[in-house]
Amino acid sequence: MVETISGGITAVPGIQASGVSCGIKESKKDLAIIYSKVPAVSAAVFTTNLIKAAPVLVSARNIKENVTRAVVVNSGNANACSGPRGLNDAERMVLLTAGHLDLDPREVLVSSTGVIGEFLPMEKVEKGIKKAVEALSESGGSEAAEAILTTDTVRKEMSCRFVLSGKTVTIGAMAKGSGMICPNMATMLAFITTDVNIKKELLQKALQESVKCSYNLITVDGDTSTNDMVLLLANGNAENPQITEEGEDFQAFLEALNYVNKYMARQIIYDGEGTTKLIEVTLQGVRDYESGRKMAMGILNSSLVKTAFFGEDANWGRIITAMGYSSRDFDPEKVDIFLGDLQVMKEGVGLIFNEERAKEILSHKEIKVFIDLKEGKDIITAWGSDLSHQYVTINSSYRT
Amino acid sequence: MVETISGGITAVPGIQASGVSCGIKESKKDLAIIYSKVPAVSAAVFTTNLIKAAPVLVSARNIKENVTRAVVVNSGNANACSGPRGLNDAERMVLLTAGHLDLDPREVLVSSTGVIGEFLPMEKVEKGIKKAVEALSESGGSEAAEAILTTDTVRKEMSCRFVLSGKTVTIGAMAKGSGMICPNMATMLAFITTDVNIKKELLQKALQESVKCSYNLITVDGDTSTNDMVLLLANGNAENPQITEEGEDFQAFLEALNYVNKYMARQIIYDGEGTTKLIEVTLQGVRDYESGRKMAMGILNSSLVKTAFFGEDANWGRIITAMGYSSRDFDPEKVDIFLGDLQVMKEGVGLIFNEERAKEILSHKEIKVFIDLKEGKDIITAWGSDLSHQYVTINSSYRT
Repeated sequence: MVETISGGITAVPGIQASGVSCGIKESKKDLAIIYSKVPAVSAAVFTTNLIKAAPVLVSARNIKENVTRAVVVNSGNANACSGPRGLNDAERMVLLTAGHLDLDPREVLVSSTGVIGEFLPMEKVEKGIKKAVEALSESGGSEAAEAILTTDTVRKEMSCRFVLSGKTVTIGAMAKGSGMICPNMATMLAFITTDVNIKKELLQKALQESVKCSYNLITVDGDTSTNDMVLLLANGNAENPQITEEGEDFQAFLEALNYVNKYMARQIIYDGEGTTKLIEVTLQGVRDYESGRKMAMGILNSSLVKTAFFGEDANWGRIITAMGYSSRDFDPEKVDIFLGDLQVMKEGVGLIFNEERAKEILSHKEIKVFIDLKEGKDIITAWGSDLSHQYVTINSSYRT
Repeated sequence: MVETISGGITAVPGIQASGVSCGIKESKKDLAIIYSKVPAVSAAVFTTNLIKAAPVLVSARNIKENVTRAVVVNSGNANACSGPRGLNDAERMVLLTAGHLDLDPREVLVSSTGVIGEFLPMEKVEKGIKKAVEALSESGGSEAAEAILTTDTVRKEMSCRFVLSGKTVTIGAMAKGSGMICPNMATMLAFITTDVNIKKELLQKALQESVKCSYNLITVDGDTSTNDMVLLLANGNAENPQITEEGEDFQAFLEALNYVNKYMARQIIYDGEGTTKLIEVTLQGVRDYESGRKMAMGILNSSLVKTAFFGEDANWGRIITAMGYSSRDFDPEKVDIFLGDLQVMKEGVGLIFNEERAKEILSHKEIKVFIDLKEGKDIITAWGSDLSHQYVTINSSYRT
């Protein structure tokens, strides 16, 4: 039984956070810190883009340490394609945060998001880190969630609790992401805190499993960013018997973590750049995860599919076309396709369907597409957005 | 020396064509026939989409015959995802055309383009084929070129001649394609005629080579269609000594064919749905063709890159990001990027550049992006379009 509660990342006992404005962005909050009062174990997945931003490189090194105590994040500047100077700036963010909090620098992780290819204004960042450390509080989750946003229009946070071996365990999360969203074996920025007591290896395992069915199954525009990162801190404050193997407790924790991550992933799509509709694609009878993921992403990344949904046009021919070029793993003559509960294709052939009923289904803010491949036993659900005029408007003038 | 001439596909001696209106589309021309007065050898490449339209299946079978005499093409309906009935309709188009022209049905090819998943109105098609056969003429190239269009706004045709072993050889071509354009080892619809005297095997070889550096290096929206097809007919009327091996004459013919196909490919991009700019990406220092193609397509299919060009925003960070997720075959720290003659990235690090000069370069209708990877010796040039409001408008209401 997973119960949703308020508080975001600071809903977790022992976690403090803050979000401040230091001037990287004109007037909005742009620097956040997460701090665990007691040593936490941590897990992370990073972008698989060959181009990795400086903070990704620094955090990928520090995550190998046994303990993580703090995370510093800035928005408005990605510190990517910034060469040795950028790497030095990321290290400096870690050192400054560690200094103010009296931590070993290896216990601090760093993350950045925003424009690629510009240098960080380090004087501002320096003042910002000092200010953010001073502002840390047990109710600072929402301020932190606000400070990591870029083109996002709403904060994305959630928290929940469940019982594990008689102890209440809490999970909190915040994320950002609106464009350049097509996480591949990694994700956009998401920060998850929990007080579960778990071995570091199993925390990493749980995170990787959970990312596969949440952030890795969403797409806004098919563009995998240079700065994608999901971090998970677990400080053990729940005092449950430590999870040391993949037993019942691990499964219960994983289930709650999936609940949080799927919620957050959908939030990102709902706030996708220019999104007017959330498209949920469920593939049944898939051979395996990778095969299903490729096909689902093929459908959800097709500009033609996306514009058809924006126009509320039941042009399912574009769905089967996208399936055909993104996968070899199915027999076209077995495929059934449904829009909502309306079947439009049966065993590879188009059906004559009620256009009015289709219009009605497509007029909703959330549209379910169900496809039966009849090949294997797997089922996979992925989420994407439509492609609207607003997307073009936002992205034709991002830097200016 | 290749000389451009007028006349399209009927510029070639011995080739007749026509384009008529038979009512598949409301008032526009929608049915074309190409006819070779003497037996021609033919070559073709077809879509690699797993979903293949009925006419693709029929033509892929008939192209194996030694001789091709006619091609029948309709627009307004793709005859795809139409099951056994669709296959029967495609066969019937072949039979009707063969009947009126007194040909062996195996000497006739068929092609369709338009909406997916609807059945052909065969009564209209039947009358259309009769009308088109009656209208065949040696100056019908432009009418045929008009009849194969869908969302295209202009006819796409060209013709040229060159000398081969003392004989004048002519090549003519027509194509359609505006959306659902990302030919993969195949292409949209293009029909090329020539009077060169060549063995069938070498004609196929020349076509495959030529498609690789033309239609297979263009993209409008990353969507590979179910109906893509390029057909090439050679009737031998030029009376050059037959090309039977890959010698000098083969190379001269290939060069002329490349000239025609690259021209046609660029025409398709210029008329891409909602295109306001043609983006030409040249990758230097590429390891091999496939590696370069993948990266070039990654850049040109990125919605973020495309909207930045639409907005005339020098957001090169999106270019390097797309390179990073679409390829593993390069070292980010070696990469140089130029917009026109303006360098914006040197050895993986962004340069501070003159924004006014960048604005000026991006204001042009044709923008060249030059990227040096310094990995291998290959060079590859690909073409794409920007992503504009007009693209969204066109594709949100295609069926209605």
